[in-house]
Amino acid sequence: MKILTRAVVALAALAMLATPALAQKTVKWKLAMTWPSTLTPLASPPLRLAEMVKEMSGGKFIIKVEGKEKHKAPLGILDMVKGGQYQMGHSASYYWKGKDMSMVFFTTVPFGMTAFEQYAWFYYGDGMKYMQQVYDRYKVLSYPGGNTGVQMGGWFRKEIKSLDDLKGLKMRIPGLAGEVFAKLGVNVTNIPAGELYTSLDRGTIDALEWVGPGMDIKMGFHKIAPYYYTGWHEPASEMQFLINKRAYSKLPPEYQAMLQSAMKAVASEMYFENFAGSAEAWEKMKTEYPNIKVKTFPKPVLKAMKKATDEVLNSYAAKDPVFKEILESQRSFMKKARQWTIISDYNYIKTCLELEED
Amino acid sequence: MKILTRAVVALAALAMLATPALAQKTVKWKLAMTWPSTLTPLASPPLRLAEMVKEMSGGKFIIKVEGKEKHKAPLGILDMVKGGQYQMGHSASYYWKGKDMSMVFFTTVPFGMTAFEQYAWFYYGDGMKYMQQVYDRYKVLSYPGGNTGVQMGGWFRKEIKSLDDLKGLKMRIPGLAGEVFAKLGVNVTNIPAGELYTSLDRGTIDALEWVGPGMDIKMGFHKIAPYYYTGWHEPASEMQFLINKRAYSKLPPEYQAMLQSAMKAVASEMYFENFAGSAEAWEKMKTEYPNIKVKTFPKPVLKAMKKATDEVLNSYAAKDPVFKEILESQRSFMKKARQWTIISDYNYIKTCLELEED
Repeated sequence: MKILTRAVVALAALAMLATPALAQKTVKWKLAMTWPSTLTPLASPPLRLAEMVKEMSGGKFIIKVEGKEKHKAPLGILDMVKGGQYQMGHSASYYWKGKDMSMVFFTTVPFGMTAFEQYAWFYYGDGMKYMQQVYDRYKVLSYPGGNTGVQMGGWFRKEIKSLDDLKGLKMRIPGLAGEVFAKLGVNVTNIPAGELYTSLDRGTIDALEWVGPGMDIKMGFHKIAPYYYTGWHEPASEMQFLINKRAYSKLPPEYQAMLQSAMKAVASEMYFENFAGSAEAWEKMKTEYPNIKVKTFPKPVLKAMKKATDEVLNSYAAKDPVFKEILESQRSFMKKARQWTIISDYNYIKTCLELEED
Repeated sequence: MKILTRAVVALAALAMLATPALAQKTVKWKLAMTWPSTLTPLASPPLRLAEMVKEMSGGKFIIKVEGKEKHKAPLGILDMVKGGQYQMGHSASYYWKGKDMSMVFFTTVPFGMTAFEQYAWFYYGDGMKYMQQVYDRYKVLSYPGGNTGVQMGGWFRKEIKSLDDLKGLKMRIPGLAGEVFAKLGVNVTNIPAGELYTSLDRGTIDALEWVGPGMDIKMGFHKIAPYYYTGWHEPASEMQFLINKRAYSKLPPEYQAMLQSAMKAVASEMYFENFAGSAEAWEKMKTEYPNIKVKTFPKPVLKAMKKATDEVLNSYAAKDPVFKEILESQRSFMKKARQWTIISDYNYIKTCLELEED
């Protein structure tokens, strides 16, 4: 009897000691993304994040990733995360410019920073502070979620030789670039990924921009619109992870740390994946699709785009002090970051090109 | 009595259920890095990694990071990780080119890939496969550990106007670039970070390269050697995390996953940190250190460097089939990656510059 009592006490003590730490709690989350589940590399960050977090937690922290094909609301991610139907989301901030124009700064702006200038702004400038300030209104946390790098300027049925060729053109282009094109007489619309090809094929639109060769070629746009323009409008499109604040605050700190680590890891991986895919597709393009005509917009058109961009940005800044503050922060950071880009990466590639010429 | 027995059984079952998962095991590791602990951003990845892993594991997986000031063997990291005195290390592969010339490919080679071309090669080309193949000889695992981006070409007391100015020059420059300079008549040496300024000041060396403005300006080189050259020799210096294979295999899978996630996260952060620091320092340089003379090597010098680089690479390839295989892998990947860099980032910056000119 005494032995048994001791055994009970010992086992009880053991059970106490062995009580799982908070990190051992089973947590099941859902993540909604704007993209269909198969649309890599955009869908890659959330899919990889879920896998990493599962492994790190020994299968205790599970994030179920749902693509557009499941929730049917590709442009409703912010609302769904805010409402708590999903604890997390993955999308691009500029899709909510209708709610708040400042959202565009966290994806990309025409003639703005490149990916690594922008990451430097996020982490060593005021980017993270401003992004959270804007998302605070929705009780949602926001973190960088992967970057496409410089996007191509889009696919056009006809060559754009002058500003006149833009007038009356029907084009799919989101974000601030859409407003710039609108100023130049384009009829602008946004259409989710799944409907792009059909819209172009049926003539609902005459032109569209999507991402870059890695993603575009698979969509088949070149069959209908063979003029492929270089980029000016989305130099560094950053995706965002969104997290419901209440859900996050209830997570054990270990799981919060896992999310933070995994979000950073997968964001960078998306850039590498898209870069590799684009390099691959660009090389193939030349041999397999020789009908594609790669062009840069004529200088007068680019100048008009630049002027319209500044006008659009300044007009929003005049109306909205937060927009103005973020615009000034980006402009001043970009000014110094660009000097370094020019002397490092740009000058290096230029040197390599000049040596090849001889 | 029956009740007590039941209680014992129940408690025993509870103790079983509640037995800490493997991930709850306390693990204490040590990491040795080439850098002094204060030498950010090079020291940042291991310091951040240790912090992240600690948080993710609820304080159970502890990595003690030791800088050069502690272990006194800045260039002995590979040996110490191989020997097991340290479970992990952080350094740059090209420091072991004396052991194995193929190691240079995992840091950077003159006129080679930029950081994101190279990351694409690591993850979507054969980079990771080759890096592990070479490190397998030392029973060490290796992973990317942070990139400096394009490094500046170094500080020189006198302007380099022609190839003659290189003859007899005493210069600190590691990696394959050192061999290229040697071919052009330079007396090449490698000196650890802590002794660079003194060596330059005492005339042990006439010139040196270190990293870029973010790190260089703090060292004060400009006071002695005011000619600051743009880069050609280290377009994408990648650091490496090294892990003792046996130690890794004994880790619970959850801790392995935490390491994998954290290594990726902190590698990218180092790039951002160094980029931001360089942009900051570059801007300051113009106002605070107007005596610094920024130069690009004259074209005949660059052409000779390019020719010597190809000769050095080809001569090692002729002697070593593994070196040859990796060289061919990098050359073929770079060929397609560079095309995409040119049409995306390079063309974008060029467009922005042309619009500014008017």
